[in-house]
Amino acid sequence: MRYRKIPDETVRRLPVYLRALFILGRQGQTGTSSTELAAMVAVNPWQVRKDFSYFGAFGKRGSGYEIDNLRKKITKILRLDTSRKVALVGVGNLGSALLAYGGFETYGFDIVTAYDCDPKKVGKKMYNIKVEDIANLKDLKKDTIDLAIIAVPGSAAQRIADKLVKAGVKGILNFSPRHIQVPKRIKVITIDIGMDLACLPYYVS
Amino acid sequence: MRYRKIPDETVRRLPVYLRALFILGRQGQTGTSSTELAAMVAVNPWQVRKDFSYFGAFGKRGSGYEIDNLRKKITKILRLDTSRKVALVGVGNLGSALLAYGGFETYGFDIVTAYDCDPKKVGKKMYNIKVEDIANLKDLKKDTIDLAIIAVPGSAAQRIADKLVKAGVKGILNFSPRHIQVPKRIKVITIDIGMDLACLPYYVS
Repeated sequence: MRYRKIPDETVRRLPVYLRALFILGRQGQTGTSSTELAAMVAVNPWQVRKDFSYFGAFGKRGSGYEIDNLRKKITKILRLDTSRKVALVGVGNLGSALLAYGGFETYGFDIVTAYDCDPKKVGKKMYNIKVEDIANLKDLKKDTIDLAIIAVPGSAAQRIADKLVKAGVKGILNFSPRHIQVPKRIKVITIDIGMDLACLPYYVS
Repeated sequence: MRYRKIPDETVRRLPVYLRALFILGRQGQTGTSSTELAAMVAVNPWQVRKDFSYFGAFGKRGSGYEIDNLRKKITKILRLDTSRKVALVGVGNLGSALLAYGGFETYGFDIVTAYDCDPKKVGKKMYNIKVEDIANLKDLKKDTIDLAIIAVPGSAAQRIADKLVKAGVKGILNFSPRHIQVPKRIKVITIDIGMDLACLPYYVS
C-alpha cells in the first residue's frame, strides 16, 4: 500500500519520530503521547497529531499512542520493513567512519559494497567490505543496489553522482559539501554538517 | 536584538533557508520567491512566508525576497554574524573527516582545538590543529569556546558530554549514535546518519 498524499515535510519528520520511538522503547516505555513526542522532535503537539493522521494513526484520547504499533506503521510507510542494500563511494576518512558507524542497521540499511579510486585501497577489505575500483561502479545494479552514499571530495561529487545515476541508483545520500544535480526521478539528501551546527548559536548566547 | 518568539521548528529551518540562499547566490541570482525557496527546502510556500514573518522579512508582492538582505537577516538571527570557536572531541576516522571538512566556515564556525585519549595522537598536529589530551578538557573555557562536537564511540559519548558540560560548554553537536543527557540549559543536536538515510526508501521504490 502506498500512501501517496503524505507531504514531503511529514515524510522527513517520520524518521525523526521513529528515532524518538526507538529511544522511548529502549527506556522501557510502551506508550507515548503527542506532547511527549512533540517535545522530543521539536514540533508542536498538533503537528504530531496531524502528521500521524496522514496514515491513520490516531492516538486514543487520554491514552495516546502505542509505541510498538506506531513504530511498525512508520517503518512500513518509510519502506524500512525490508533490508536495503547500500553502496558507499569514497573510503577516505569520512567513508571509513561511515563503514565503522553502527547506526545504519537500526533502520535496515546494509552497506554491501564500497568504491574508491585509490589503487592502494582497491581490492583491500575495510570493515569486512571489499573496496572495488570506481571504474566498476557501472555494475552496481547487478547486485540490486538502489541506494548510494557519496563520501568523496566536493570536486568529485557531481561526477560520481552522474555515474551513480547512470548505474541505476534511485536515491543518494550526499555527504560532500556540494549541491549535486540529478534528474528529477532521483532523490538526493544532502548532509550539510555546517548547517546542522548552524542553529546552535541561537540557543547558546 | 533577540527574537524570542520564533518557534523551534522555524529556528531549525533557518539554516536550511540560509543554505538555499547561499546556493542561489552562488548561481548569480539576486532575488528569490517563497515558491522557489519552498521547493528547495521541501516545505510549502505559505510556511516559508510564515517562517520569515517571525522576523519581519516580508517579500514584496510580485518581486519576492532580496537574497542578500534575507541572508544577512537570517545570519544575524542565528547569531552566525560573529565567528564561533568550536572544540572537537575525538579524532578517529570521523573526527579527522570533520577536521578536513570544508563546510564549517560558510557558517562562521572555526574548530580551534581537538581532544583525544589516544597517546599516539595527543601532541600531534592534524590539519593544523594540535591534539590535546582529553584530561585537559576542563580548561576549555579559558579559550572562550562554548560549542563542541562529540565524535567519540557511542560508549564514551555520555562521559564526554558530562565533561563538556562541566567545562562550561553550552551547545553540543553529537555525532555518536547515542542519545546523550544534559541539563536543560544545554542545547544538543544529535546527528543520526541512519535517520537521515531513512526517508530515501520512501521515494525510491
